[in-house]
Formats: sequence, structure tokens, C-alpha cells
Amino acid sequence: MRQKNCIAGQSGGPSVAINSSLAGVLQTVIESRGYGKVYGAVNGIRGVLDNNIMDLTEKAAADRGFVEHLKKTPSMYLGSCRHMLPDYREDSTPYKQIFERFEQYDIGAFFYIGGNDSMDTVMKLNKYAESIGSEVRIIGIPKTIDNDLCITDHAPGYGSAAKYVAAAMIEIGHDTSIYPINSVTVVEIMGRDAGWLAASSVLARNEYNKAPHLVYLPETPFSTEKFLEDVREQISIHHNVVVAVSEGIRDEKGQYISAGESVEDSFGHSKLSGAGKVLEHILSENLGIKVRTVEISILQRCAAHMSSLTDIAEAFRAGRHAVESAIKGETGRMVTIERISDSPYTTGMNCVPVEQIAGLEKKVPRVWINESGNDVTREFIDYAFPLIQGEPIVDYKNGLPVYLPIEHLIK
Amino acid sequence: MRQKNCIAGQSGGPSVAINSSLAGVLQTVIESRGYGKVYGAVNGIRGVLDNNIMDLTEKAAADRGFVEHLKKTPSMYLGSCRHMLPDYREDSTPYKQIFERFEQYDIGAFFYIGGNDSMDTVMKLNKYAESIGSEVRIIGIPKTIDNDLCITDHAPGYGSAAKYVAAAMIEIGHDTSIYPINSVTVVEIMGRDAGWLAASSVLARNEYNKAPHLVYLPETPFSTEKFLEDVREQISIHHNVVVAVSEGIRDEKGQYISAGESVEDSFGHSKLSGAGKVLEHILSENLGIKVRTVEISILQRCAAHMSSLTDIAEAFRAGRHAVESAIKGETGRMVTIERISDSPYTTGMNCVPVEQIAGLEKKVPRVWINESGNDVTREFIDYAFPLIQGEPIVDYKNGLPVYLPIEHLIK
Repeated sequence: MRQKNCIAGQSGGPSVAINSSLAGVLQTVIESRGYGKVYGAVNGIRGVLDNNIMDLTEKAAADRGFVEHLKKTPSMYLGSCRHMLPDYREDSTPYKQIFERFEQYDIGAFFYIGGNDSMDTVMKLNKYAESIGSEVRIIGIPKTIDNDLCITDHAPGYGSAAKYVAAAMIEIGHDTSIYPINSVTVVEIMGRDAGWLAASSVLARNEYNKAPHLVYLPETPFSTEKFLEDVREQISIHHNVVVAVSEGIRDEKGQYISAGESVEDSFGHSKLSGAGKVLEHILSENLGIKVRTVEISILQRCAAHMSSLTDIAEAFRAGRHAVESAIKGETGRMVTIERISDSPYTTGMNCVPVEQIAGLEKKVPRVWINESGNDVTREFIDYAFPLIQGEPIVDYKNGLPVYLPIEHLIK
Repeated sequence: MRQKNCIAGQSGGPSVAINSSLAGVLQTVIESRGYGKVYGAVNGIRGVLDNNIMDLTEKAAADRGFVEHLKKTPSMYLGSCRHMLPDYREDSTPYKQIFERFEQYDIGAFFYIGGNDSMDTVMKLNKYAESIGSEVRIIGIPKTIDNDLCITDHAPGYGSAAKYVAAAMIEIGHDTSIYPINSVTVVEIMGRDAGWLAASSVLARNEYNKAPHLVYLPETPFSTEKFLEDVREQISIHHNVVVAVSEGIRDEKGQYISAGESVEDSFGHSKLSGAGKVLEHILSENLGIKVRTVEISILQRCAAHMSSLTDIAEAFRAGRHAVESAIKGETGRMVTIERISDSPYTTGMNCVPVEQIAGLEKKVPRVWINESGNDVTREFIDYAFPLIQGEPIVDYKNGLPVYLPIEHLIK
């Protein structure tokens, strides 16, 4: 019997670790010879539907440094999509197309690297595969800077984003401390429904830097009165106060603080921006001091020059584990990271049914947030610190970081 | 005769190179023994007025790594101020205080590291010194991420900020290219009246990355109609278009595009923000496509982990040259960098009367901007590329960059 091939896709928002998982899939297939070719679906499941497929094994054969470069290249080498599959019992058309394409390319396994929405795709494809008795293995590989995937201790992509946020916070701490006047700097950090990334800004605190002085997450209701009280208190101690705030903070009624202009994406999630600006406005109106907003914006998910070696390595291992699981015959599962110990930091890889993950969200536990709801506890710091450790060697050319060219995406 | 001491101060906005100039002053005094102690005026000239002065020679003696750490620490070790001195013929009170303080500390030279406004202070102090026959040497050391100081080929601080902007632009190029839809990302970059920093984003272009596809600087009038035409054209070629825009772009009448909420700082400059948001609004209204704004914000001036070794080294040499000039008896001058050749990149240091610099602004030459006013020319690239070369070794501890603690500023 001729050996089957496999295909990988990437979906959702970019991160600096998602290409490392793709590299893990590619390298493991090459080493194990568990599959013939590794195809890449360009723009996620859309590439399968549209027959926009490239041969990654060929790329690796043509360039011996390909896998290593891929590991350190930010964003998504194969491009992304935000494409939601219908329930196959209502509309099986796209499923038929997808599995016909799998047959056309002689596919034995499909690896989908992404967050919650991508795991929804993994779950649906697996259900359809079961319904038609397909032997194609469907495996999800976690990736999200938001760190909101369930079961897994943390998701690849989070550690690097957390490191970038913490490093930026140290530098913001230096920047904001130079004038002998009272000021507040509001730093808005990504995180729609979970505060993991905003919380990571506290890792910046050291013997002299106390920024961020206040931290607000979506997990606890935000009160304007309490916020003004908190800032007044901090100003009286520190003069230059830095506030870290998750874009997704909301009031007691569950309304986003940034509400007003919220729009929905194709998965029905509200797209947010502006919590920082709203807080800036509240402070200017009420305290009459110098206030500035810093939106860390997309740099927190694409700044590969400040990635975590721990994160990049775990993302690679997650890709490897996905291939090994598929070879063993597992399907409809997502790779998870299990933490064995904090110190020394040790993890293992596992694989759980994707139904336990898709559509669910892991939030920062309430007990990891202080009682006042304006800081995190030691437990969070012990959890997060190991994830930002280590620096990959960044290659520079002409004074700038060198990443893998992605000509097939950039026109 | 007892040897005189010297004093240094920092003023204006932060950069990642200004501490390297301070390190250059300190190291040169220690090596040359041209002065006894090096004092630091905390919060610029305000520290002299308020007798908030520290002993830097003592710091260096207590910690052998102090000078090296100082070179690589972002923001301003001594803190800053935005304090404008009056004309001494109208009000000599602060001058009397300052020169009494110089006498109290037995000061032979005052080094002021900063931009345009700081050179105004240098000029005024020098005029007053002349009027009273003081022998205190007054020397300015250039620093500005805006690169708008005259005479000097470029200003320390610019190269590192330019490198950060260009590196961020490469990563933004990766991030924005992943979805197979049309989109525009507007990247707002600092620069009130001169477009040097926004222009540096073009250094990100390489064999595959064409971002930024359009660049708008304050030096050429901005037309909304032309802008929409430009974006439509680029969208038809590239799909995901990145626009680099200086915060200070203005229309044919000289009105800031971001106008509306402009306020003035204590030097009478308009404080701007929001040009990016205004362009985002124009695009959403007229093109109906996905638009996003990224404000690079204060990270472009404080991200020491992405600084230019060339810049850090030149900032240090500028500090050194200031000390050597003062020892030679020069006064009322600012250190300038003279470019000897582009390739190999070679520079020399000079010192010119500060009157040739204070209150003036160097803009990007019109001939370095293309005819359409939406890009820069090869001349700009040849000018800017040498300035971003080389990477200092960043020290990491617990996964984060380690900088010099500035306990005396952060409370």
C-alpha cells in the first residue's frame, strides 16, 4: 500500500509560535517517515476548499535551513482564515469538497493549528469523518496568545506574547518615570474575554520597577468609582502610575467598557478596541492630570524578535506530538500541554477529545486575582514566569531581523 | 588650584541612546581626569535650580559595570524636564540661582543632552555666562528620535528609533499579510514637524516584504483625495496595504490632519495624536474595507532591546567629544556628527555654535521624497541604512531585559 500524505493548516489570529508548530509537524514527518508528503493548506481550511495547497516537504528539501527559519518566523507561514463550517447535517457541501480534496492528495491526516474557532473546525471535520467512516485523522494543535483554551496548561503563542508585553512594560516603566509631575499611562493589552495577557504585564516588576501599578482584567467587573479611587491612591505614592488593562474589561452588567462601536466578526465575537482610551477619558475628566494611552496592538502577537524560547520549543513539541498521535491512530483530538512541575519547569504532551475544548473558554481563576480586582496574586506569577524564559537567537541582516520570506502570501 | 567638577543633565523626551551620551561624559572624565567629579542634575535644569544633584563618579566607583549598563539603559537615567528659561535680560533670577549652584559645586562645565528645546537652554545659559564673564563651559549634546536638529548629519537616538520602527514594520508586514481579503493597516509614527522617523519604516522593505506600501510625511501637503487614489491603486496590487504616516502630516493650508484636539506644551508646540485614526476613518467611510490603526507610540523611543549599536556608540562618542571640547575651552556649542562616507560608513565629531541650531528644524529634503509625496527616494535609504546597523548585546534575567535600576526616579 502506498504511503499516505498529510496536510497542515493554520487559522485564527497570528502569533510568533504558530510556525514553530508547523515546523514540528514537518520535521517529525520527515524524521519518522510516518507520512509521505506534508502539504500546507494556504489560508487554512479555505486552502483545502479552493485547492490552494503547497508542498512543504519540497520546501524543506530545497532549503536545509527551512525548518529552523520557519520556527522563528512570526505570523502564519501558510496564511490564515476565519471560516466557520456549517453543521454537516444541515449543509454537507463543504465537507464533501474537503474530503474529496483529501482523497485527491491521498491525505491520511489533517493538522489544524489554531485557537478556539479552529478547534470548532477540528470537531466538525471529525464528526463528519466519523459519519462517512473516513480514516483521515483530524488533530488540533493549540495556538493562542489569549491563552483561553481549556484543558491544556497553557497554549503555545501565549508565552511569547506575555514576554513581549512584560518587556514592553519594563521599557514603559523607564519611559514614564522621567518627569517630576503626576501622570497616568494606560496600557491596553489584547484579551477579549480572558485576562491572561494583560496579567502577564506584572512580570515586569522588579527591584525598582513597580509598573504596572494597577491591573484590570475581564474576569472581575470594572467599576469607574473604584478605578478612580485606585488611581488616586497610587498617584499619591508613585506619581507616575502605569495601569495595565485588558481590552475586554466590562462593568457589573457585563457591558464592555469600550462598548459603543462594537462590531461582530464572522464567528459572532465582538471586535473591541478602545478600553484604554475610555479609561484615559475617565481620568482626564475626573483627575485633571496628564494621561496617555499606549495600545500595544498587533506588535504583541508578531514581535518574533522578543519571543520566548520555552514557548517556541513547546509549540514545536506540540506539532511533533500531533504527528505521533495521528500515526498511533488518534483522531478528533487536540494536543495539550501538561505541567509536571513549576521548578524545575517540566511539561509533558497529551491529546484529549476536542469536544472538551471547542467553544469553551479558560479564564484567569478568580483566586489568582486579588480581592480588590486590581492586581494578580503570587499564584499567577508562579504560573506565568516559566513560560517567558529563554531567548531564541534572532538572525539579523542589514540591521534588521531576518524571517522566512512568505512570497506566496505577500503580493 | 583645585580641579573643577562638571555636571550633566538630560532634557526633553526619552530615547534609548541618551544614557549612552551620559556614559560617554562620565567615562571620558574618569579616563582623562579633566574634571574632578561628574555630577548629575536630576530632572535637567530643574535639578540645578532645586539642588537635586547626584554624584555619578561615586556610582561608577561603587559599581564597575555602571558605565556599561548605563550605555544600554533606555529612557533618561537622570530624569527629564520641559523647563524653558526666560530671556535673562527680562528675568535673571533663575540664571543667578543656576550659576550660584555651579559655584557651590565648583562646576567648570555643564553638559546638556537633549533636542531643540534643550539647545535653547544651552544658548541662553551661554549668553548669560558671557554677560557675567563666567568661565563655566556650556556644551550641548544632541539627542532626538525626531532627527530634526540642524548642522549635525543626524542626532543620536534617531538610529535606534528608526531601527525599532523598521523592525516593527517587518513584523507588521508579516502580521497583515495572512488573510485573503483586502485590508489597510495605518501605522502612525512619531514626528511632529519632520518625517525622518516615519520615513525610516521603508528600511523594512526586502525581497518579499513591500510594506510600507505608502509613506506620508509632514514635509509634503496631505490631500485626502490623493490619499484615497493612492490606497485604491495599492489595494488593487497588494490586497493587504500598509500605510506609514507621520503623526504630524498636514493639509495644503498647513492644518494638522489630526487637528481638533490639539493642545500646546510649555514650549508652545502642538501635542498631536490621532493622524492614524483620522486616516482610518477616511478609509472606512470611502472604501468600505477592513482598516486598522497601529500607533507605535512610546515604544519607538524606549525599546532598548532593539537599539542600534551604531547609534549607541555614536551617542557615547558625542558625550566624549563634549568633554574634550569643554577641556579645550570651547563653550556655547553643540556637538555635531559629520558623515565622512556612506560606505564604509565613517563619521567624525565636531562642535558648532549652538545659535546655528537652537530653535531651528531640519526637515527631510523635498528631493528625498518622491514626486507624488507618498514615498521616499533612494537618497533617503542610503542616508538612513547605516544608522540602524549593529545590535548591542542585551542582557536578560528571568526572561526579560535587564536595565540599570533608576530608584532615584521611580517611587
